[in-house]
Amino acid sequence: MNENMQLLRERLQEIRDLNAAAGLLYWDQTTYMPPAASPARARQMATLRRISHQKSVDPELGRLLDELDPYAEGLPPGSDDAALVRLARRDYERATRVPSDFVARFAQHRAETFEAWTRARPADDFALVQPYLEKTVQYSREMAGFFPGYEHIADPLIDFSDYGIKVSILRPLFAELRQGLRPLLQAIAKKPPIDDACLRQTYPVEQQLAFVRELVQHLGYDMQRGRIDLVPHPYTTMFSIYDVRLTTRASAELLNEALFGTIHEAGHSLYDQGIDPAFEGTPLARGASSGVHESQSRLWENVVGRSRAFWTFFYPRLQQVFPDQLANVPLETFYRAANKVQPGLIRVNADELTYNMHIIIRFELELDLLEGRLAVADLPEAWRERYRRDLGVVPPDDRDGVMQDMHWYYGSVGGGFQGYTIGNILSAQFFNAAVRAEDEIPADIERGEFGRLLGWLQENVYRHGRKFDPVELVERATGRPLQLDDYMDYLWKKYGELYGLEK
Amino acid sequence: MNENMQLLRERLQEIRDLNAAAGLLYWDQTTYMPPAASPARARQMATLRRISHQKSVDPELGRLLDELDPYAEGLPPGSDDAALVRLARRDYERATRVPSDFVARFAQHRAETFEAWTRARPADDFALVQPYLEKTVQYSREMAGFFPGYEHIADPLIDFSDYGIKVSILRPLFAELRQGLRPLLQAIAKKPPIDDACLRQTYPVEQQLAFVRELVQHLGYDMQRGRIDLVPHPYTTMFSIYDVRLTTRASAELLNEALFGTIHEAGHSLYDQGIDPAFEGTPLARGASSGVHESQSRLWENVVGRSRAFWTFFYPRLQQVFPDQLANVPLETFYRAANKVQPGLIRVNADELTYNMHIIIRFELELDLLEGRLAVADLPEAWRERYRRDLGVVPPDDRDGVMQDMHWYYGSVGGGFQGYTIGNILSAQFFNAAVRAEDEIPADIERGEFGRLLGWLQENVYRHGRKFDPVELVERATGRPLQLDDYMDYLWKKYGELYGLEK
Repeated sequence: MNENMQLLRERLQEIRDLNAAAGLLYWDQTTYMPPAASPARARQMATLRRISHQKSVDPELGRLLDELDPYAEGLPPGSDDAALVRLARRDYERATRVPSDFVARFAQHRAETFEAWTRARPADDFALVQPYLEKTVQYSREMAGFFPGYEHIADPLIDFSDYGIKVSILRPLFAELRQGLRPLLQAIAKKPPIDDACLRQTYPVEQQLAFVRELVQHLGYDMQRGRIDLVPHPYTTMFSIYDVRLTTRASAELLNEALFGTIHEAGHSLYDQGIDPAFEGTPLARGASSGVHESQSRLWENVVGRSRAFWTFFYPRLQQVFPDQLANVPLETFYRAANKVQPGLIRVNADELTYNMHIIIRFELELDLLEGRLAVADLPEAWRERYRRDLGVVPPDDRDGVMQDMHWYYGSVGGGFQGYTIGNILSAQFFNAAVRAEDEIPADIERGEFGRLLGWLQENVYRHGRKFDPVELVERATGRPLQLDDYMDYLWKKYGELYGLEK
Repeated sequence: MNENMQLLRERLQEIRDLNAAAGLLYWDQTTYMPPAASPARARQMATLRRISHQKSVDPELGRLLDELDPYAEGLPPGSDDAALVRLARRDYERATRVPSDFVARFAQHRAETFEAWTRARPADDFALVQPYLEKTVQYSREMAGFFPGYEHIADPLIDFSDYGIKVSILRPLFAELRQGLRPLLQAIAKKPPIDDACLRQTYPVEQQLAFVRELVQHLGYDMQRGRIDLVPHPYTTMFSIYDVRLTTRASAELLNEALFGTIHEAGHSLYDQGIDPAFEGTPLARGASSGVHESQSRLWENVVGRSRAFWTFFYPRLQQVFPDQLANVPLETFYRAANKVQPGLIRVNADELTYNMHIIIRFELELDLLEGRLAVADLPEAWRERYRRDLGVVPPDDRDGVMQDMHWYYGSVGGGFQGYTIGNILSAQFFNAAVRAEDEIPADIERGEFGRLLGWLQENVYRHGRKFDPVELVERATGRPLQLDDYMDYLWKKYGELYGLEK
């Protein structure tokens, strides 16, 4: 083995270990940490992130990469070493372009903004966060400015989480999606609403958790390399390929949160647990992008987990756990309830169809803010206007309007939302490719067998980690670039049948 | 504030934060980590320890300390800044005297030794660990050699955990203790054994944990700044003054483990939670030494937690939780059972009296090994001989003999055991000093009031953290140096009364 490759691996592993430790500090904070520990914990996380950043921009790392270039150029393009050098180079260039004092100032500003948001939101006081958000827009533009040569000012910000995806791709794609969703939503609005009362009964939390714990293991989630804990805002976190933890929440009055929320996080976890163990401790051991990662949570949550076939197998089991609540509820009633479409104010509670509208609204508002066509002061009104137009609902306050999500108050403005809808689109594209390759998958699901689907996804997506750029990975796995056809077909077929619609 | 002091604090805080993160990685490993994660976790902990060590020996830190010397010399000797500079200087000198490649080689050897021990102990195969232990003795002597000028080769090793305590102090002190314990143990051996059957009943673990959770909070353990979890080998860990976690274990067949084990750990925790918050993030925010720390676990576990006064208050509560087991057991029977003396093979199961014999045996064997007067090959036989002579019991195998404790197979030989008995001796010395100052303390305990005792300990011991050297702290708090009188008086009074003995 090339000696410099060994040195590179050691440096990258050190950065990875620091980030994993910071990740555990965060996981602990949201699960088991005593309440009074917060300020010291924030300091500890900042220390680890700072040291990790210092190591990410160490000029010695740059020199090592320079020395490795001839070696990497001699490798076949599909080799793991070549991918490792390429990614390490990309991460290094990206990190070194942003001056360290900017990183520190922006981090400080983000912490202050988040703190202000936690006070402003419950008080419905947008004026309190407005000056912070104005600064955040400024910082976000400055951040983009460190990456000159972009087509659109949002492109560098999108690049951080969805490498290679540009506004010039997303704007027409999202416009087409909105155009496609509109008639579907209008047709559904004319139909009688689905009755989802069966989901809104009293469901003891402990039994819900026991059920979903079994369920996700049935899908393939490996508890030897993971665990499940309750948190207020669920997420999946990975400390190594051997330690991928899922978090979830549960409501005693609404089955959806634990049920579909846990399947969603299990999708993320299956991806991370499926990465090639040879990549452990390197920058290859992550998902390809935010959008590709989300495609897996959505594939398992929606395409699989809200399908009639899935519940044909699991519903009798669910009825056994909750006989008082469900013994007299037919499968069809439950299936329909799980797929009820209803425009609402809150993104995280949205159904499969309207969810995308929430994202498109945020994405377009971000572009307007970054382009300078919308002032932060006018943002609450713009938000209400879009909601009225696209979803037919108007938030009565800013709490459930423009201050709803933490994203803008915790990170940059730009780059944080597009991945959700890219994920929705890709969920159908990947699933269809899997079924084309293995046509027994739909019948498998009805029998509660997920090995063939999981196997295809592992082989074509998961095991590669970050080895291929997202655009390339999608083409390799599905035979075509990111496109809307599979997703729109999926939606029309499913919701057309559910609501009795003609396209 | 002196600008260099600020720079020093930042550097020390960075080291402290890295160590706290490594501590959390360990806590997580012993509590909630998925089983398959071990190898990656070991690597992550090693990475953090390595970076922490690099920062501890950074020559920039040395230059900063040099520049601070004139400032520190101008400060009054009791000032916190002076103590901080003094401790930072001591830690830096200590860390830099040991070459980094020795640190790395010894760490590697310790990991391999520990791994061998985990296989050798269940197989009762001392021959397997013998070559490792021989190397460990060699490493331990080499380690001492980096600190020339010592009186005894074990002194530098003892210094790491019990600063300022030397073999020349401990050898006569422990000899005197053995001389004092011998007639006491001989007199007890002639009496009929205490019946402790009441502790050996079926006690559901959940109820035990609920009881001790209440109990330690009653003593003053702050759950806003701590938590309690189950582990196989209990310990207390501190990530900040605001996050001091206690771990414990419980047996459904024996009440002692959860009951007295949790009070023991609560003693450690009360100490750490009582440190002056102004010291947070600095090397001052730790206990004064291993022995002083153990004095607090022992004070709460034994001097307080196994006293008749303590159970006069708590026993009716315990009876309420376990009526089937204890309703017909009188307080006196329970109190006697909790203080039963019986020589045995296992240190961690030993009673208050014989515990010290286990420590003295190990301490003296360590000295023999380091002095070269005992070969590792002869250690198992020497162990059996000492147990026969000092405790009148002989281990039937090496599993419960020389391979019993992980200490020698995880760290150095020398410096790891003396703190336990120093702690026992100091537990009585500190308690007596508290009672001399506040004579209502014994009556308080009988009423279940611990505020006055805790207050005295906080004021005289806990709040100072590591500000005073252990020798000075003991003198300040108790008015005299470490000595045996209080402890022997305490033992004779308690066990004389229990067993009806005349001194």
